Amino acid sequence: MTNNRITNLFQIKLPIIQGGMIWCSGWELTSAVSNSGGLGLIGAGSMHPETLREHIQKTQKATHKPFGVNIPLLYPDTEKIMKIIIEEGVKIVFTSAGNPKTWTKVLQDKGIKVAHVVSNSKFALKADEAGVDAIVAEGFEAGGHNGREETTTLELIPLVRKISAKPLIAAGGIATGRQLLSTMLLGADAVQMGSVFVVSEESSAHVNFKNEVIKAKEGSTYLALKQITPVRLIRNNFALTLENAELKGATKEQLIDILGNRRAKKGMFEGDLEEGELEIGQVSALLTKIKPVKNIIDDIMLEYRVSREQIAHMKFDF
Amino acid sequence: MTNNRITNLFQIKLPIIQGGMIWCSGWELTSAVSNSGGLGLIGAGSMHPETLREHIQKTQKATHKPFGVNIPLLYPDTEKIMKIIIEEGVKIVFTSAGNPKTWTKVLQDKGIKVAHVVSNSKFALKADEAGVDAIVAEGFEAGGHNGREETTTLELIPLVRKISAKPLIAAGGIATGRQLLSTMLLGADAVQMGSVFVVSEESSAHVNFKNEVIKAKEGSTYLALKQITPVRLIRNNFALTLENAELKGATKEQLIDILGNRRAKKGMFEGDLEEGELEIGQVSALLTKIKPVKNIIDDIMLEYRVSREQIAHMKFDF
Repeated sequence: MTNNRITNLFQIKLPIIQGGMIWCSGWELTSAVSNSGGLGLIGAGSMHPETLREHIQKTQKATHKPFGVNIPLLYPDTEKIMKIIIEEGVKIVFTSAGNPKTWTKVLQDKGIKVAHVVSNSKFALKADEAGVDAIVAEGFEAGGHNGREETTTLELIPLVRKISAKPLIAAGGIATGRQLLSTMLLGADAVQMGSVFVVSEESSAHVNFKNEVIKAKEGSTYLALKQITPVRLIRNNFALTLENAELKGATKEQLIDILGNRRAKKGMFEGDLEEGELEIGQVSALLTKIKPVKNIIDDIMLEYRVSREQIAHMKFDF
Repeated sequence: MTNNRITNLFQIKLPIIQGGMIWCSGWELTSAVSNSGGLGLIGAGSMHPETLREHIQKTQKATHKPFGVNIPLLYPDTEKIMKIIIEEGVKIVFTSAGNPKTWTKVLQDKGIKVAHVVSNSKFALKADEAGVDAIVAEGFEAGGHNGREETTTLELIPLVRKISAKPLIAAGGIATGRQLLSTMLLGADAVQMGSVFVVSEESSAHVNFKNEVIKAKEGSTYLALKQITPVRLIRNNFALTLENAELKGATKEQLIDILGNRRAKKGMFEGDLEEGELEIGQVSALLTKIKPVKNIIDDIMLEYRVSREQIAHMKFDF
């Protein structure tokens, strides 16, 4: 039917990939996205290895469609996790935050398709050279971990397109059908969406966090911890403490001290809106409702089709 | 021929507006853009009132096409400048950095079309209520002065579209025909481009600055002075001094002291690449060549038409 390189690569129906987000992307979200025609990804970043195994097995029971696992390569359990992924017969892996050379070939030799997430075209070139099957280019708008260059999606997609001909997935700031078509027009083959799936009924995010995302406006998030690892957060009490410390020139050690432990779990999974870490993208300002995954994807694709029609009939023949 | 609200409003051929930038946008750039079918804007922000009068008169001699003046409303000479604009028969004014209520009706009563530049949807609503003829929504990618919310163009255009039905001009990060079509798809009627015209042959930017913009890569610019007035700059020696002071928690007074006087003129107009202030957008990373305005605009429109054709024939019927 279609000749899209990403839907062909992953054998999915729609050019929509759900970001494998910590504390939000368990088997229920993953299987719901895959069952709705997109590609669901389990977020291994917040799971003990055996918890991940359980989520893989539950996803396999809940869907016969393709799905994958996202794993940040800097995590200490990476080796164990890769072993489980191979043992459990996962066919698609998205890697991030680390060197794509380390695992790409190892996984591909087991018949696994590998995509790697980057925030700039230099890392995109490295991913290309490592032989990944696809590149995810994620802009400054994105929630969670983010690039130091602060390059936005509108710039990043054309920049990556200039240096690599690989199948390309745009990420960061995308939650609507118009944004999907816009980024495809910039050179992406498909998109990865995170925030919009955090506020799905099936995400494992705490309902308090989902409601806070729905309430978010322009300027509700900011890019914190630029000196350590940039991460986009909602400005709650914890984040304001962090931001004030940063503005006053806190050292890395002081910031790590404020950060403390288990903030992300506390915020996103346990629903502590004041002292937890609430990672979400700028596009939260456009989200208005918690919806089932199927409705989210149907709405995106409807808007995509309508905007394609509009552009085809646009009278702007300049 | 076309039914575009911005080209109709300003009686221009193409949906391209050239940003009225300090030290770069004199009569030569303005008239070249207008003569090529776009809307040229004189940048009044760096001109003494009588210098502006001279540039208006020279533009009138150099083109019979519509052109305008951009004026930041917070400048002390605003009253004098508005008087000159009215006396000299300027028909289009773009205002920024101030309250759109103050001047919109005054100018419209003299038959002048007024557009106002905003960086968030709250200010867009104020501009709408002030009765402006068009809104320019400028994202985080943009060079020069910028919004505190750091909302990127990919988010800002849909957000502004939600609260206002006014003719809408997208700005920030746009320099190519694909980016033009992408932002129109998001809800803009036209675009304003700055950086790409800085590196035109006709811009009054110093050739050293133009060459520095061509050399810029991802991460070459950053958003400085967030505590005072956020502004996007190239990281040269001056900017690094500023950035280090900011990271160490400098007070506003200390930052103003580092800033000093005449930095922008020194950098952009006099070509001091180390100690001058070099305002440019993230899209500088995509710019590769100094070109005449006509070629810049022709290349953008060619890519726009090609990408329209591609989208019309795209087989992605998901």
